Amino acid sequence: MEILNGNIASPLGFSADGLHAGFKKRKLDFGWIVSECPASVAGVYTTNKVIAAPLIVTKQSVEKAGQLQAIVVNSGVANSCTGVQGMNDAWEMQKLTAEKLSLAPELVGVASTGVIGDLLPMATLKSGLSKIVVNGNADDFAKAILTTDTQTKTVAVSQDFGRDTVTMAGVAKGSGMIHPNMATMLGFITCDANISSTALQKALSAKVETTFNQITVDGDTSTNDMVLVMANGCAKNVEILPDTPEFEQFVEMLEYVMADLAKKIAQDGEGATKLIQVDVEGVATALDARMLAKSVVGSSLVKTAIFGEDPNWGRILAALGYAGVDIPVDNIDIYLGQLPVMLASSPVSFDSEEMDEVMQADTIQIRVDIHAGNQSGRAWGCDLSYDYVKINALYRT
Amino acid sequence: MEILNGNIASPLGFSADGLHAGFKKRKLDFGWIVSECPASVAGVYTTNKVIAAPLIVTKQSVEKAGQLQAIVVNSGVANSCTGVQGMNDAWEMQKLTAEKLSLAPELVGVASTGVIGDLLPMATLKSGLSKIVVNGNADDFAKAILTTDTQTKTVAVSQDFGRDTVTMAGVAKGSGMIHPNMATMLGFITCDANISSTALQKALSAKVETTFNQITVDGDTSTNDMVLVMANGCAKNVEILPDTPEFEQFVEMLEYVMADLAKKIAQDGEGATKLIQVDVEGVATALDARMLAKSVVGSSLVKTAIFGEDPNWGRILAALGYAGVDIPVDNIDIYLGQLPVMLASSPVSFDSEEMDEVMQADTIQIRVDIHAGNQSGRAWGCDLSYDYVKINALYRT
Repeated sequence: MEILNGNIASPLGFSADGLHAGFKKRKLDFGWIVSECPASVAGVYTTNKVIAAPLIVTKQSVEKAGQLQAIVVNSGVANSCTGVQGMNDAWEMQKLTAEKLSLAPELVGVASTGVIGDLLPMATLKSGLSKIVVNGNADDFAKAILTTDTQTKTVAVSQDFGRDTVTMAGVAKGSGMIHPNMATMLGFITCDANISSTALQKALSAKVETTFNQITVDGDTSTNDMVLVMANGCAKNVEILPDTPEFEQFVEMLEYVMADLAKKIAQDGEGATKLIQVDVEGVATALDARMLAKSVVGSSLVKTAIFGEDPNWGRILAALGYAGVDIPVDNIDIYLGQLPVMLASSPVSFDSEEMDEVMQADTIQIRVDIHAGNQSGRAWGCDLSYDYVKINALYRT
Repeated sequence: MEILNGNIASPLGFSADGLHAGFKKRKLDFGWIVSECPASVAGVYTTNKVIAAPLIVTKQSVEKAGQLQAIVVNSGVANSCTGVQGMNDAWEMQKLTAEKLSLAPELVGVASTGVIGDLLPMATLKSGLSKIVVNGNADDFAKAILTTDTQTKTVAVSQDFGRDTVTMAGVAKGSGMIHPNMATMLGFITCDANISSTALQKALSAKVETTFNQITVDGDTSTNDMVLVMANGCAKNVEILPDTPEFEQFVEMLEYVMADLAKKIAQDGEGATKLIQVDVEGVATALDARMLAKSVVGSSLVKTAIFGEDPNWGRILAALGYAGVDIPVDNIDIYLGQLPVMLASSPVSFDSEEMDEVMQADTIQIRVDIHAGNQSGRAWGCDLSYDYVKINALYRT
């Protein structure tokens, strides 16, 4: 697999564009991804009981058509908690985009992110649609979907399948309301592979649990989270079928793309100064291991300690203890970076200069061994800083 | 029921004291509560899998003796995650206190709160024990158990049972690692009622769910949380038996004391500037209603919005949606104070000056009606401020 310096339009047959329509004051806030032909599609959607209108529209359309040819996104207004009017607006957003592209409406996915509760300004949407182009600047798409993110999140890879090269790219936005149980943000992945929607969904569902679902910024699950994968077959490779070596290769590629985006989201969590990676080993089941890792990375006390560069490992142990997993607690090892701080559940003294070096790094690696099985799990998050509070206290002012 | 201006020694036959032993630099950090005779006892303990040594000692002793005559507490060092040495130290803390009071060791409950992972300095403990007195200053006990709390938390009430007056008092400390599922801090309740340990436990277990378990500060469940209730019978009332009107009266009294302490803990949460009270009505079961209320009050995004005095009700709806409770989301009303912000799941416009008044108050009342049943639940919490981050980033420096 080769890592490319590419963008969401790197796979064959895809284009993307982004621009400022006016949902936000100044920044880019409207974009689309278009495939030259209908693409196989797979999606995962928020587990929040309150589901934003655009997700309902997209999910229904994907289920109906089994394909997707375009995705249109606005940032600044989430069109969530907007009642009947919000649903009408989301259907209209789909219809207007389809008209612009001369497509059947159900081939257009719609997504929105931003403030909850405000109605979508339809005149702004129309203005954006009048200006957006096919074969525009794909890097602008990555900018147009951001809210409080401080940087764009893009990844592109390619890999040979027989004589054909398949290219895959992903783009995502965070960076608040980032938490468990599905699609914890907006993520769009394009690919030129020849693969059915069913196989694509199988690959996505298999790897979303260990990637996007293993990041947390603040424990709040958004009403608008969604990951969509499109594969348009332009690479003209032999169709990738489930339960083949090629499928495994494809799944690995997808996992790489999703894990990379997940890490970038965690790293750019609201107010984050450090990326935290937690590995928990020696657990009876992989699910338990993931829950333990996510409990540690989600602890406000662990997160504030890391912001303060304080190796307060007791808080790590406490977070393991309340993870809701039945584990023995008498033989736990905890490492910060390479330094053990607890072995066999007893404190270990460490060199404070070596520890300073670990805690002052941009990425804090926490490794835990429970010694009660052979499964492991990983989770990513970020520290909790003054700026998280500032960003969210003043979000609308 | 009469609200008294009292303290933990107001019930007959109890005394308490607190002093500076040296676990902390300057503040009071060591105290005890002593009854003149063995008291009936009830306890609830942390649900964290990692349980601090003093809780193990106290729980085993309470189960063995079925009575308690004294409780000794230090703050500054939690004696948690301290391995075998920590267990030995907790047993020694119990034994030394028992010797000082000429009691059987199992009649002494021990509790610690503070930094996790440090060993209990036994010389400091002995120094404290050499200076503490029976019939000391009970207000000093309330001070001696504090960590990052900014104020003492005390309540006292009395009520007539036939010709006899029963007095009950409580004292608690917060104010970080405050969250669900039991004993989310240290709470001690004294009472001079004549009631068995079994009946006392029944009363405590019944009301802990709607009081202490309904507060959250940061979602972190401590390893050291414990609530102990002692009833020494000095009021010489006719024994209060379960399933009698007197028992109901007693339970009400206990609920008042616990709810009062719970609210005071939430109000004094680390960095808190506002108390948040959430009432969720119209739910199928009381447990679901409590879970919904706690999800809202625990949301980092709701908490930061309230710190910023921003009526961002969309975040309230989102927190209801991810509470893990199966609710219909198409007919929800949300009120901030008396002002409706969402009715039948659609946004309602409000007067911004009236809203400013609501949001600028010290207590923010959020009321939700799901319209899908007749049960309700209440939870308390606090806003998330810069100071929460500051306190926890720099806790050990």
